[in-house]
This record gives sequence, C-alpha cells and structure tokens, in this order.
Amino acid sequence: MMPPPDPNLLSLNTATVREKWNLRQMIEGCARQGIRGISPWRDKLAELGAKEAARMIRDHGLTVTGLCRGGMFPAADRKGRRAAIEDNLHAIDDAATLEAKCLVLVVGGLPPGSKDLPGARAMVRDGIGEVLDHARGAGVPLAIEPLHPMYCADRACINTLAQALDVCDEVAGRDGGGLGVAVDVYHVWWDPDLKAGIERAGHKRLLAYHICDWLVPTADLLLDRGMMGDGVIDLPLIRSWMEAVGYRGFHEVEIMSATNWWRRDPDEVLARMRERHQACT
Amino acid sequence: MMPPPDPNLLSLNTATVREKWNLRQMIEGCARQGIRGISPWRDKLAELGAKEAARMIRDHGLTVTGLCRGGMFPAADRKGRRAAIEDNLHAIDDAATLEAKCLVLVVGGLPPGSKDLPGARAMVRDGIGEVLDHARGAGVPLAIEPLHPMYCADRACINTLAQALDVCDEVAGRDGGGLGVAVDVYHVWWDPDLKAGIERAGHKRLLAYHICDWLVPTADLLLDRGMMGDGVIDLPLIRSWMEAVGYRGFHEVEIMSATNWWRRDPDEVLARMRERHQACT
Repeated sequence: MMPPPDPNLLSLNTATVREKWNLRQMIEGCARQGIRGISPWRDKLAELGAKEAARMIRDHGLTVTGLCRGGMFPAADRKGRRAAIEDNLHAIDDAATLEAKCLVLVVGGLPPGSKDLPGARAMVRDGIGEVLDHARGAGVPLAIEPLHPMYCADRACINTLAQALDVCDEVAGRDGGGLGVAVDVYHVWWDPDLKAGIERAGHKRLLAYHICDWLVPTADLLLDRGMMGDGVIDLPLIRSWMEAVGYRGFHEVEIMSATNWWRRDPDEVLARMRERHQACT
Repeated sequence: MMPPPDPNLLSLNTATVREKWNLRQMIEGCARQGIRGISPWRDKLAELGAKEAARMIRDHGLTVTGLCRGGMFPAADRKGRRAAIEDNLHAIDDAATLEAKCLVLVVGGLPPGSKDLPGARAMVRDGIGEVLDHARGAGVPLAIEPLHPMYCADRACINTLAQALDVCDEVAGRDGGGLGVAVDVYHVWWDPDLKAGIERAGHKRLLAYHICDWLVPTADLLLDRGMMGDGVIDLPLIRSWMEAVGYRGFHEVEIMSATNWWRRDPDEVLARMRERHQACT
C-alpha cells in the first residue's frame, strides 16, 4: 500500500467547477478549503485579467500549477498557423504573469478537411519550436499534454507519452530545458508503456500531474470524467511511478463532468476532492 | 494516388447490417451485390448454426474472412476464466466449420471491480496460450485485434499493434504460426507507430484488415462509426502500408452506427460500401 499523498499537493484545475464558479470564487474556494494549488483555464482568466488574477492568487497563498492552455498549432493555412503562434506567445506571457509552473499545451488535431496526420504532427513540432525561445525567456516551461487517442482528430494529435517525449527530444534537444510533459491519468492510464515513459521523462520533464478517473461505462467522450476512486484507474500505482523518478509537484484535479460534478455545489466538489485525494490516489 | 482496391476483396462484417438482417439475408445480400467475403458475429451464426451457415455461405460462393469473436479472457475467478477458455474452444470449432480465415479475438478488459491492468493483460496472454494448440490443430489462425484505448477498461486491454505483436511473440514464438493480428483502422489509425507495427507484423501475421472511418465529431464511444470517406482516416495510406508488406487478404467493412447506417435499408448500405471501397480506400 502506498501511503496517502501530501494533502498540500492538491490543486484545483478550474475545469472541475467551471459551470458554477468564476475565477474569483474558485480562488476563494480553494483558500477556504485548504487547497494550495490552482490551475486556471484561460476563459476563466479572461474574467479577471492575468494581473488581477495573479495578485488575487498570490494574496490567497496559492500556487499556479499550470495555465490551461496553449497549443492548437495545426491550421489549414499559414495565416491560421501564425495566429496560433501569436496566441501561444500571449498565453506564455499570461503564464509568466501568473508565475505558473507551466503552460499546458493541448497541441491540436487535424486541420478542418485534412486527413494528413503526419502533417498535423509536423505542424505541432514546428509550432512548439517557434514559441520555445519566448517561453524560455519568460521562464515558463511548456508542458506537452498527450491526449487520449480518442481526441486525436479534433484536439491533440500527440497521444502517448513516448510521442510527446520524442517531440521534446527533437525540438528542445535531449537535455534541453523549458519543454516537458503533463501527465494526465485520464489520457494515459491505458498505455502499456506508461511506466517506461515516466521513467524516460524523468523529474525534469514531468511538469504537471493531472488526476481524475475513468468511469465504466463512459457515457460521453469529453464530459464524463470521474472523481478519483469512482473508476478503474490504479491511481496509487501511477503516483508511485511519478514519485519513483522524483516528481514532487502538485496533483491537479481536472474533472469535466456535465451530468454529475458540474451540477453539484462546488464547495462539495472541493471537499470530495480532498477526501478522495487522500483515500484513493 | 493509390489505384483503387480489387473489388473482389470487399467483405461484409455482419455488425454493419445487424439491426435489419439475419445471417441468411446477409449471405443472400452479399451474393446479390457481388460482395465476395463475409465475417459473421456469433450471435448471427447462432441463428443458423455453424454447419448450416457454412453450407449456405459455400453455396453462395462467399469466403468467410473471419469469425467475430473469441477472446474476453480476463475474469474475476478461476471458474470465469475457465468458462472463457471453453467458449473460445467452441468458437474455434465454429470457425473451423466455417473455414474462416481467422477467429478474431477481442481479448477482454478489466474483470468487474478490478483496477489491475497488468493482471488483466497477463490473463489475456495466458488465455491465448491455453487455446492456441487447439486452434492450430483446427487450422484456425487466431487474430488478436488491438482495440482503441477508449475500450481498454471494458472490452480489450490490448490497445496497440505493438502490444498485440508482443503477445504473439511471447505466446507463439517470434516465428510461430497460428497467431497474428487483425488491423481495424478504427482502432489504430491514430497510432504514430502504426506503420512500424504493420511492418513488424509482416504478411504472415496480418490476418485481417477491417475498414470504416472515424467521424468528427464522434457522438458515441461504441456505435458511431462512419462509412469509409465520411471521416478523417487516410484509408489509402494505411492500405498502402498493408500491401507493401504483402497483405493480399480481404477488406472487411465493420460499421456500428446506431443513428445512421443501422437505420438504412441494408441493400443501400452494401451498395454504398462497394462505391466507397473503390472511391475512398
């Protein structure tokens, strides 16, 4: 048996309570419930603006465990790809203002009408390459988040940890800084090479750890994630692999759940997160 | 541009028209529409019985490109695992009666209540090992079908071609006969190592090729597959990889589509299959 995790490592990804709370309420809610980390999505950040959000988060003693999200690099034409680059540069600046531990990259899928998966993957690699220097200068590590293969077409064509690490090696160099990965159990729990990928990444490239659970059955491809303990993911086992290579960062809870958790009182959701973090991860 | 495929290689997986036709109608429909292959699911086979189905399929000049399905090896206890073995032995006998090109194995997911994915995968390996001799004796190759990772929990914990080939190597030996893989584009199209996996398999282990398409958006995890050409899979590219290593077998159309194709007149579905096979694969 793994001992329970340090409760101070719990972090709230704002997607978990996005339907009922604005960012101000989330910051206050985390502070009230003793949750020390927060990871805002940019739609919520826009409500306050990065500077005001940064001030408020700091005043409440919270750590920004990541900003969600940059990425979405593939586009049908040069103009679209350029717009994506600009958007990522802006996201990097916001992440710097927030002193975020990383900017999470959901890299994007196939451009509309395209079936060229190798081409989309090349656009991702090139896009990351174009923004990496700016990210390094701003002190914001970029975290490639491999997404579950069911999102390959429309959200992210990087779908395994090995593939994300190959991009890291290619774009940043094998020992290059400023580029790593976000491990979200929902996306990678099934991967027979997950342990090997975590070991290959090592603690320097493990920039974020996201937790939730995979429900059986899963009713919706996007919005039916489970609370830790309600599904089939062996969360203590995956945490043991992360810790074995030296990961000491936060455990960020990201649950998109249209018919369950999003409907509940967010204070109840945060309380349940705390309990389950201790009991089931 | 790839030249269009040989129309004589088209095969109907009975799942594609299962809602409106029984097996007798499917056999007659294939013969009427000039489709030369058929791959029955066992629920449909049970309607006629294997012997009568074999006779009728032979009389109509069709090839049985596979029997769907064996597998489902993991179970919570020894009794359940034994029952799975017995069921697979029976399926092998039916496949032999049908002179099927292979028995497709959907290997099974986690036993109820279990989070032990390595354990489930070991049960799969052991289960295949227990039935392989019987399959060899019956002249029925076993085709491990890696299923999309979104089915890892409840349908198949073998989720990539590489992983399926590892099981082949381990159970049958690197050059061992009687065990190979079924490549279904729906399950593997996203895999950055797909081409390498097809090359590693080689034509001796490529026992079946299943086609359909991945729709964007996909509305349901199980029953929203698309007709070839309606989605984002680069079907000619994947076929080119199959042919490059010497695959000359059938192209089996398996479309589970609750809200579209299952509602249509099956004769229309078969006609559309023929058109799209030529135009889009």
